[in-house]
Amino acid sequence: MVLAEGKRPAHLKRIVEAMLDKCGRAIVTRASPSAIRALSGLPGRHREYPDAGIMVLTMPGFRPPRRGGTVGVICAGTSDFRVAQEARIIAEQLGCATVSAYDVGVAGVHRLFDALARMRRRNVDVYIAVAGREGALPTILAGMVDRPVIGVPVSTGYGMAGKGKSALYAMLQSCSPLVVVNIDAGFVAGAVAAQIASRSMRRSGRGAPG
Amino acid sequence: MVLAEGKRPAHLKRIVEAMLDKCGRAIVTRASPSAIRALSGLPGRHREYPDAGIMVLTMPGFRPPRRGGTVGVICAGTSDFRVAQEARIIAEQLGCATVSAYDVGVAGVHRLFDALARMRRRNVDVYIAVAGREGALPTILAGMVDRPVIGVPVSTGYGMAGKGKSALYAMLQSCSPLVVVNIDAGFVAGAVAAQIASRSMRRSGRGAPG
Amino acid sequence: MVLAEGKRPAHLKRIVEAMLDKCGRAIVTRASPSAIRALSGLPGRHREYPDAGIMVLTMPGFRPPRRGGTVGVICAGTSDFRVAQEARIIAEQLGCATVSAYDVGVAGVHRLFDALARMRRRNVDVYIAVAGREGALPTILAGMVDRPVIGVPVSTGYGMAGKGKSALYAMLQSCSPLVVVNIDAGFVAGAVAAQIASRSMRRSGRGAPG
Amino acid sequence: MVLAEGKRPAHLKRIVEAMLDKCGRAIVTRASPSAIRALSGLPGRHREYPDAGIMVLTMPGFRPPRRGGTVGVICAGTSDFRVAQEARIIAEQLGCATVSAYDVGVAGVHRLFDALARMRRRNVDVYIAVAGREGALPTILAGMVDRPVIGVPVSTGYGMAGKGKSALYAMLQSCSPLVVVNIDAGFVAGAVAAQIASRSMRRSGRGAPG
Amino acid sequence: MVLAEGKRPAHLKRIVEAMLDKCGRAIVTRASPSAIRALSGLPGRHREYPDAGIMVLTMPGFRPPRRGGTVGVICAGTSDFRVAQEARIIAEQLGCATVSAYDVGVAGVHRLFDALARMRRRNVDVYIAVAGREGALPTILAGMVDRPVIGVPVSTGYGMAGKGKSALYAMLQSCSPLVVVNIDAGFVAGAVAAQIASRSMRRSGRGAPG
Amino acid sequence: MVLAEGKRPAHLKRIVEAMLDKCGRAIVTRASPSAIRALSGLPGRHREYPDAGIMVLTMPGFRPPRRGGTVGVICAGTSDFRVAQEARIIAEQLGCATVSAYDVGVAGVHRLFDALARMRRRNVDVYIAVAGREGALPTILAGMVDRPVIGVPVSTGYGMAGKGKSALYAMLQSCSPLVVVNIDAGFVAGAVAAQIASRSMRRSGRGAPG
Amino acid sequence: MVLAEGKRPAHLKRIVEAMLDKCGRAIVTRASPSAIRALSGLPGRHREYPDAGIMVLTMPGFRPPRRGGTVGVICAGTSDFRVAQEARIIAEQLGCATVSAYDVGVAGVHRLFDALARMRRRNVDVYIAVAGREGALPTILAGMVDRPVIGVPVSTGYGMAGKGKSALYAMLQSCSPLVVVNIDAGFVAGAVAAQIASRSMRRSGRGAPG
Amino acid sequence: MVLAEGKRPAHLKRIVEAMLDKCGRAIVTRASPSAIRALSGLPGRHREYPDAGIMVLTMPGFRPPRRGGTVGVICAGTSDFRVAQEARIIAEQLGCATVSAYDVGVAGVHRLFDALARMRRRNVDVYIAVAGREGALPTILAGMVDRPVIGVPVSTGYGMAGKGKSALYAMLQSCSPLVVVNIDAGFVAGAVAAQIASRSMRRSGRGAPG
Repeated sequence: MVLAEGKRPAHLKRIVEAMLDKCGRAIVTRASPSAIRALSGLPGRHREYPDAGIMVLTMPGFRPPRRGGTVGVICAGTSDFRVAQEARIIAEQLGCATVSAYDVGVAGVHRLFDALARMRRRNVDVYIAVAGREGALPTILAGMVDRPVIGVPVSTGYGMAGKGKSALYAMLQSCSPLVVVNIDAGFVAGAVAAQIASRSMRRSGRGAPG
Repeated sequence: MVLAEGKRPAHLKRIVEAMLDKCGRAIVTRASPSAIRALSGLPGRHREYPDAGIMVLTMPGFRPPRRGGTVGVICAGTSDFRVAQEARIIAEQLGCATVSAYDVGVAGVHRLFDALARMRRRNVDVYIAVAGREGALPTILAGMVDRPVIGVPVSTGYGMAGKGKSALYAMLQSCSPLVVVNIDAGFVAGAVAAQIASRSMRRSGRGAPG
Repeated sequence: MVLAEGKRPAHLKRIVEAMLDKCGRAIVTRASPSAIRALSGLPGRHREYPDAGIMVLTMPGFRPPRRGGTVGVICAGTSDFRVAQEARIIAEQLGCATVSAYDVGVAGVHRLFDALARMRRRNVDVYIAVAGREGALPTILAGMVDRPVIGVPVSTGYGMAGKGKSALYAMLQSCSPLVVVNIDAGFVAGAVAAQIASRSMRRSGRGAPG
Repeated sequence: MVLAEGKRPAHLKRIVEAMLDKCGRAIVTRASPSAIRALSGLPGRHREYPDAGIMVLTMPGFRPPRRGGTVGVICAGTSDFRVAQEARIIAEQLGCATVSAYDVGVAGVHRLFDALARMRRRNVDVYIAVAGREGALPTILAGMVDRPVIGVPVSTGYGMAGKGKSALYAMLQSCSPLVVVNIDAGFVAGAVAAQIASRSMRRSGRGAPG
Repeated sequence: MVLAEGKRPAHLKRIVEAMLDKCGRAIVTRASPSAIRALSGLPGRHREYPDAGIMVLTMPGFRPPRRGGTVGVICAGTSDFRVAQEARIIAEQLGCATVSAYDVGVAGVHRLFDALARMRRRNVDVYIAVAGREGALPTILAGMVDRPVIGVPVSTGYGMAGKGKSALYAMLQSCSPLVVVNIDAGFVAGAVAAQIASRSMRRSGRGAPG
Repeated sequence: MVLAEGKRPAHLKRIVEAMLDKCGRAIVTRASPSAIRALSGLPGRHREYPDAGIMVLTMPGFRPPRRGGTVGVICAGTSDFRVAQEARIIAEQLGCATVSAYDVGVAGVHRLFDALARMRRRNVDVYIAVAGREGALPTILAGMVDRPVIGVPVSTGYGMAGKGKSALYAMLQSCSPLVVVNIDAGFVAGAVAAQIASRSMRRSGRGAPG
Repeated sequence: MVLAEGKRPAHLKRIVEAMLDKCGRAIVTRASPSAIRALSGLPGRHREYPDAGIMVLTMPGFRPPRRGGTVGVICAGTSDFRVAQEARIIAEQLGCATVSAYDVGVAGVHRLFDALARMRRRNVDVYIAVAGREGALPTILAGMVDRPVIGVPVSTGYGMAGKGKSALYAMLQSCSPLVVVNIDAGFVAGAVAAQIASRSMRRSGRGAPG
Repeated sequence: MVLAEGKRPAHLKRIVEAMLDKCGRAIVTRASPSAIRALSGLPGRHREYPDAGIMVLTMPGFRPPRRGGTVGVICAGTSDFRVAQEARIIAEQLGCATVSAYDVGVAGVHRLFDALARMRRRNVDVYIAVAGREGALPTILAGMVDRPVIGVPVSTGYGMAGKGKSALYAMLQSCSPLVVVNIDAGFVAGAVAAQIASRSMRRSGRGAPG
């Protein structure tokens, strides 16, 4: 994975090129339209997810991993969308199936019940709960399921402890068992969720040694 | 109201004595056992609430206000008890009826439904929601009712943003409309709740001018 | 209510459209001129308050609530104007009468006396006190009235604890009973004030269950 | 699980008693010697881990879960011992096998190589890396393995950003994929690690629905 | 001046002794009863102000300065008393007259009017306003007088920005012209106030060169 | 005085106009070139200090105060220039003489000796010491003179505690007696310094009552 | 050395000119392209390092110091490059030899081994370790060498404790002996490293007195 | 080196014993009297520095390093003594000569001149400047010498940014080139100073490879 943010175009291009050479695939996160443009001349197949700020480049012959396992991604709405999508796409790129519910706010708890029922039917292995503002969603979710829940704070909210701080603190202080990543770090949540989800597959001998 | 905490016994006694003289009643908050002992020699009727750290002294002839209105007090459990009780007793001393539910955590959302049903039957005018740790309870509550909700953060929780900071931030960032008081400031919540609850009574001409 | 800030035009339009469909009215806060333009093609009657960053869209046949009660809004001057107006318009949209005094600074305490006299004549049910910098106004006000006071910190002030932090802290630490909302959160103060002000009306049977 | 810290003995006893009745087992964390004494009169089998501040009470007939999976616990030394032990014992109580290495500091990187080799032989499913001070250990570990790593900051260190803050920040900012819990929250890490480790068992149909 | 706090008795004694030798007077601040006891064997005349935590030792023949000028000290009440007294005694020891009003809270603004009238009659040269909690008093005072006002925050207040932080911030953000010292630093306020008050005397040729 | 920063041109113009009407003079601080342009159509005599971000407008017939006294302004160099000039011009507008030394850094202590000698010859009544970065200048100065020193932190410095925080903290913690204003608040320092410097004049009967 | 950042072009030019006159050389740091352009008309030989934001101007006849000693500069990659280069060029300008390794991340510890072997062969006197994010590199390095290590935090990283704070804290809390400079302060590290590296040369009589 | 603080006696004893076995010497820092007592039964020669909280244990046959070089230690007075002594003794134990001046405050700059002259005569290789409160001493010192200066903040000072924070910030923001260690970390300063001072010795072939 390559973080595009803060890198100049020429520089970013060089790094992505090297990664394509070495690994056959490069997943670029926080890619602005201009970053995507800068990379458009590179070889291979390009896939862009502008809403999630992600671009994936794959060389012919690259064989994506088949890790297996299912990741559920839940968030409250439009402010959390980009980060939730980032987490989801990373998990998919790392070989997992995903299920998502993007309109589950704590102000309307019943929608959470519906979403959970749907996710259980899909036998979700690990949940990613994305939330800004007061960050209560992962706590409520972790109180309802017995699967690992990863909380992702989002940099929404203004004023006191805004920009995701309040949400991060709330997840660290959660009454329910919860693990957390940094503010807006959807790609970290996606990567660890994929590690978790794929454990059962690896056990049966198909995975790489850890 | 007199805050006992941080005052030396002789000093506290003098202040309470003066207030009894002037108002006929003194409500002492954050009163330790030794503070209560120090005040035990004062005249009038004494009522002690050691679990809430409150002592109320009233002179003969003092007529408590009959403001009316009902205040609902909700919290998650034993860690929030003292602060919730402080809020409740203040509201009662200021002339309101109270209803309370002290075992309503966000980890078990169904208990909140039960408590709310009970409070609605009692026609609660204003809610006080007391919560530590991640402080999600007032947010969830305010998403369910159309009455004013006052959030009170409690100084529980350790580590990052512990001692009530996380709860305070979460209430300020709440997705639902919510007003807030300082950490552990149950008596402020009780006092303002009494002002709110009693508005309907005053309207009909029985209240004092604001 | 919809917070326009941070939402892309197309996205905002979709959300407002859905809310018009469902509720018959949409109150858009923190609406920049470009956000207002983006919404100008939507159906219904449009009302804009550019100074307060608010746009209200109502469908034909929408019946605004008649909750009743009176909200008093007080602030020191031009820096607090936008936030005070936001609080006031929200309270009006939610069915309350409002009275305002927008030139009441703590540096000239006599103007506060005049404003209060006027507000008492209008029988104000609840006060909203908006203040930046050192945030002393709500404390002084709450020391003078026996009605609920909601303090709203404003993100003015530079240097140490600037941008509203100092004002928020001062309101939380206030010597007088006071409830508080987040920095610049005029719409929260307006919404809760409307809940408080309208209590007396509901009691007589005309309001919706809480 | 019951957090003993901050609860008065009589109060703690009541809570633990209720949990024994309802669940057949109570795991008490942050139990001081006096808390352990207070609980010593309760029925059932008692097991104490004073170094980890844990006491486990089980009623006759309680069947511990057999979730399976293996949790690896790594820390640098004596300052992190209590928190690491807390994580380990919780994971064991929740039905996992554990492997531990408690002398792996970042100042002597070769000991990490040895510990890892040993843990790989035991086919560890998920790692818990406990670290205070600058908190570098989980980052280094997560750069070496392709299994989930949970970082636990410990409240050691004095001066600037001491008491675990520096370690927590470093884990959130980690260059390697890492999930984190609050400072000293060994029991949260243990609980989530057990959820992760046991996934492969559940898949084959023996686990409870999530 | 010698700060007793944090110095061991033997050590403190040595420092005070040296200062008596060199200057003929030693003003010891934040002197606990045990510190006062430790110094009781030293030569010269001793004067103790236990309420202010101050002890003044003077050698025979020491001629106190006669700087002149009048310092007014204002605070809200008992919590601010020690710090206000410290400021006052230091100003007196440095040769100024002082006037004080120790019951002037912002919740009862009229008492401030009375106090000010009295101080103006005494022709106060400089004001020291001592305040904890929300720290509004110095702001209000500085809006009413055209003399220099020194604000002293006091470490009262709990919860968010408690222990004097809120008061300090409010004074730095004050709408009225105000200079400030550190939390609880009454002796600094007293020393600078004495420098200010005595300027007019020096001008006429009686003071020492600055 | 009017703070131009953060006010829209039309708005600023209206406020300045009102002040000219009422007081005969308006001192505008933090005035950008565009703010100065916006005010250029107003009546009266205009004086601009673009380096200090100040514009002074005076109506015919306005009589500036003749308070007297001398204010010394000291800073380290070009980064502190704007704030130092702001302090100086305000002091002059309020009727004081000023002396300044703008190249006195703590890295070359001898220049401070020269500047002080010059200021003493001018019989400076009060010092304003302006400093960013580590903020040591006011401390050193206050250790050398027996006149009041006002420290003004400047928002220079990057990284940890940059933008003036470090300087403000250092001045509050100063070993020498020092009073402080908010970061970059040159105009507050100038206003209070003028109050201090003019005391001796007023005493002889020429000043306004305080 | 002159910090270009925050200075207007005309102003910067004047300062650099004066320094050329006085010292014969001017090292300008944090020089933007426009700052470099502004200085291009000045006399002497110009050398630009745009990647490091440095411009060096030397007058004919200027004799650079020959202090001797070797400084090793290590960082993880492209985000740290500018700061690492700044440190390196300053050390060279002050008369030291330098060796650098710019691709040494803590996620791939073996590259650190290679870099260290190379640096030991060059007999490095002092190390500068530049790191952002979690800032672990200087700690690991200082655990491996017995030479002085200067840690330089870099303002990368977003979210909680981002922009270099986390890295700074980690270096201050380091388990290995380490000295630290402010965030992004490469030039300070370079200057002190040159002082350290050149000590052995000075001892033999060729250096200037300290 | 072993940090005694926070370790239980039995535990500390075991660690020190192991270190004596392995290295022949153990330097114990932050050793309370009870810690020293706990270690008194261990074999070898014991040397105690109770004022510095240090205990050194050496086995017969241990050959202390003869690194050479001279370290100068400067501080303002009694509050900084313990930390300054800690730095000094560590430097001595690591084979350096030391010179110290413990009464050099920034309020009396001339004493610094005297101390510096003395240290230059001793040809000091590296300075350690220890300071609390506003932390100005290292800045002033580094402006006067061309040798490396290590600043050590001390946890004195109360109120805003007290307990060493202000001093640490000031050193990081210093106008003069300065490297810094954590608050109270005298032993780190001593260890790195010894590495610096001994460089010239090692160069000539007597030192161990770095």
